[in-house]
Amino acid sequence: MKFHSRKWVKPEDLNPNGTLFGGKLLAWIDEEAALYSVVQLENQKVVTKHMSEINFMSSAKEGDIVEIGIEVVRFGKTSMVLKSEVRNMMTRETIITVDSITMVNLDSLGRPTAHGKTKIEYVKDRINNN
Amino acid sequence: MKFHSRKWVKPEDLNPNGTLFGGKLLAWIDEEAALYSVVQLENQKVVTKHMSEINFMSSAKEGDIVEIGIEVVRFGKTSMVLKSEVRNMMTRETIITVDSITMVNLDSLGRPTAHGKTKIEYVKDRINNN
Amino acid sequence: MKFHSRKWVKPEDLNPNGTLFGGKLLAWIDEEAALYSVVQLENQKVVTKHMSEINFMSSAKEGDIVEIGIEVVRFGKTSMVLKSEVRNMMTRETIITVDSITMVNLDSLGRPTAHGKTKIEYVKDRINNN
Amino acid sequence: MKFHSRKWVKPEDLNPNGTLFGGKLLAWIDEEAALYSVVQLENQKVVTKHMSEINFMSSAKEGDIVEIGIEVVRFGKTSMVLKSEVRNMMTRETIITVDSITMVNLDSLGRPTAHGKTKIEYVKDRINNN
Amino acid sequence: MKFHSRKWVKPEDLNPNGTLFGGKLLAWIDEEAALYSVVQLENQKVVTKHMSEINFMSSAKEGDIVEIGIEVVRFGKTSMVLKSEVRNMMTRETIITVDSITMVNLDSLGRPTAHGKTKIEYVKDRINNN
Amino acid sequence: MKFHSRKWVKPEDLNPNGTLFGGKLLAWIDEEAALYSVVQLENQKVVTKHMSEINFMSSAKEGDIVEIGIEVVRFGKTSMVLKSEVRNMMTRETIITVDSITMVNLDSLGRPTAHGKTKIEYVKDRINNN
Repeated sequence: MKFHSRKWVKPEDLNPNGTLFGGKLLAWIDEEAALYSVVQLENQKVVTKHMSEINFMSSAKEGDIVEIGIEVVRFGKTSMVLKSEVRNMMTRETIITVDSITMVNLDSLGRPTAHGKTKIEYVKDRINNN
Repeated sequence: MKFHSRKWVKPEDLNPNGTLFGGKLLAWIDEEAALYSVVQLENQKVVTKHMSEINFMSSAKEGDIVEIGIEVVRFGKTSMVLKSEVRNMMTRETIITVDSITMVNLDSLGRPTAHGKTKIEYVKDRINNN
Repeated sequence: MKFHSRKWVKPEDLNPNGTLFGGKLLAWIDEEAALYSVVQLENQKVVTKHMSEINFMSSAKEGDIVEIGIEVVRFGKTSMVLKSEVRNMMTRETIITVDSITMVNLDSLGRPTAHGKTKIEYVKDRINNN
Repeated sequence: MKFHSRKWVKPEDLNPNGTLFGGKLLAWIDEEAALYSVVQLENQKVVTKHMSEINFMSSAKEGDIVEIGIEVVRFGKTSMVLKSEVRNMMTRETIITVDSITMVNLDSLGRPTAHGKTKIEYVKDRINNN
Repeated sequence: MKFHSRKWVKPEDLNPNGTLFGGKLLAWIDEEAALYSVVQLENQKVVTKHMSEINFMSSAKEGDIVEIGIEVVRFGKTSMVLKSEVRNMMTRETIITVDSITMVNLDSLGRPTAHGKTKIEYVKDRINNN
Repeated sequence: MKFHSRKWVKPEDLNPNGTLFGGKLLAWIDEEAALYSVVQLENQKVVTKHMSEINFMSSAKEGDIVEIGIEVVRFGKTSMVLKSEVRNMMTRETIITVDSITMVNLDSLGRPTAHGKTKIEYVKDRINNN
């Protein structure tokens, strides 16, 4: 799994118990899954359709740095399935895992549409090939 | 299921496609589950431990009003299991469902601890009984 | 008065003295009044026109759960008058009261327009009657 | 009345009708009243106790610049009464008025305490006099 | 330099070390420079093109009140150059300085366009002259 | 330069002209520089001391995905100097560049203190070496 986006846990990210608010964590994962899909499918109209069960393994506290990992599980015809893990960047302790996040590729009218992708592409290669 | 908290979908809640950002929706559910547990378990130190799979059934758009439902599935010894549905308040269309959200009751040191509750209580009754 | 929306007082809701920021509280009331009006008047274009005096009776602190109550005072021709109370959900202590909030029903050009409503309606009944 | 703080109306400040969200406006006024009081009373522990009726005279839209005016109505023994007006900076059109905002001076235990002030002071003079 | 906008440093503005988050400070300066330019150039389409070096001289903590100063350095043909200082309002201690912020005046297609201004104007005078 | 954190430009990140708000961009860079320093210096108390001039080369619009690059320029005794570039992830177009960001390592009392680092370290190696 590749870990890209990093977050510094600030006061605005905490729940009243002083640990990272779970809802914030879920929002970070959803954003990372969405933007990863936009890049891979080369389409800005991508939506989250399903998430498999979510395990909150440990927490994070103010000042911790967390990183969000995304990995492709498989490409469907109109969808793409990802998995995600968020971990503490310094200790590598896992904070949360989601085994499957299904993202759907939409056309301009909001209907699922084939994306034609079958494997991960790198932006670098796309640019060099043009 | 009882629906309590309501949200007016504002520009700050949207994704770049102009529909309700999924991450915001998940944050709303997590907050509602947390505060419901705090009230039932009469303990402010409650954390989300697990969510079962999440189905994004439909979306919401700017100006829609959504309401968040919570129902108790069962009381464990140190935990409580909830289910949640978010729906469009005007059309009653289901937006998202989560069948099981496990909340854990912690002591002051952050360790799971028995909460002693076995059924739903109403704040009104607690106050009248004192 | 019916209390629906609930909020968990988080660090982002506090003033520098560590109590609930009054401005946040007023924003919560304004949102609740607006969405209540949208539902009752079946019109998304509703604006706040006037609020009567506001009494800050007590405060709330981090981790408290507050609930926002709304009640209809009367239906006008182009307006609807509400009252609101916010209270601590666990202790039932009143935090703030506003005796009258005037909401105005607008047409698509932003002009006050008759809404034709004279009493509270329940979404459930509207749906069953169709 | 002196107008100091200015705000640029951004997408995050809008209601779903595309005009400035009333709740945001109230939060801006409450913050300005609070910080003005902190400066005048030379005490960081100051809270809003009461606001007189609020008139929403006109609205603002995305890209507008609004300025927030504060004026002292009178100094009490433990309190200070302010009035506020928010207007469009370019057109000078009044957006909202509040005739009286009562701020209370608290001691370290949160109890109202005499502030000893009877007239407006300028920070510049305080510094020069030391 | 004239100091207008004031901010009350709240928990949501802090970094994990409990002092004012530098990124928040930069965002406040950028907003103040933008709205100042919109007023002077009488054009809502103004963008930041360049900032000279930024010195973080001291910090601010929760509850502090900071004020943001803006001064015009010069008017160009399609641009305007500002300088800014943020200071603690009570102690007058400088928090941050930026010697030059270049704002560019755009036409409706987003291209730099002459603004025709050569000196500071006051809104009051504009209104009185009409 | 390594690009890690990615952001999906959402409505809440826009200025009133519908492009990415410059202040948000600066806040993202400051957070990335801070968290990078915390990881490298193995100290949570790190502050931004200075940024060299900032060039806003192009903008981003709603739905764009931007990535934030950080590179170490040099290690000082109590400081570390970074450079940063933000670019559009899909087109590789540069949005903003900052040639030098000076971060200072503080002790528990907030005084600059030697960090003892002279080169980039990878968390993976630190963990494997223990």
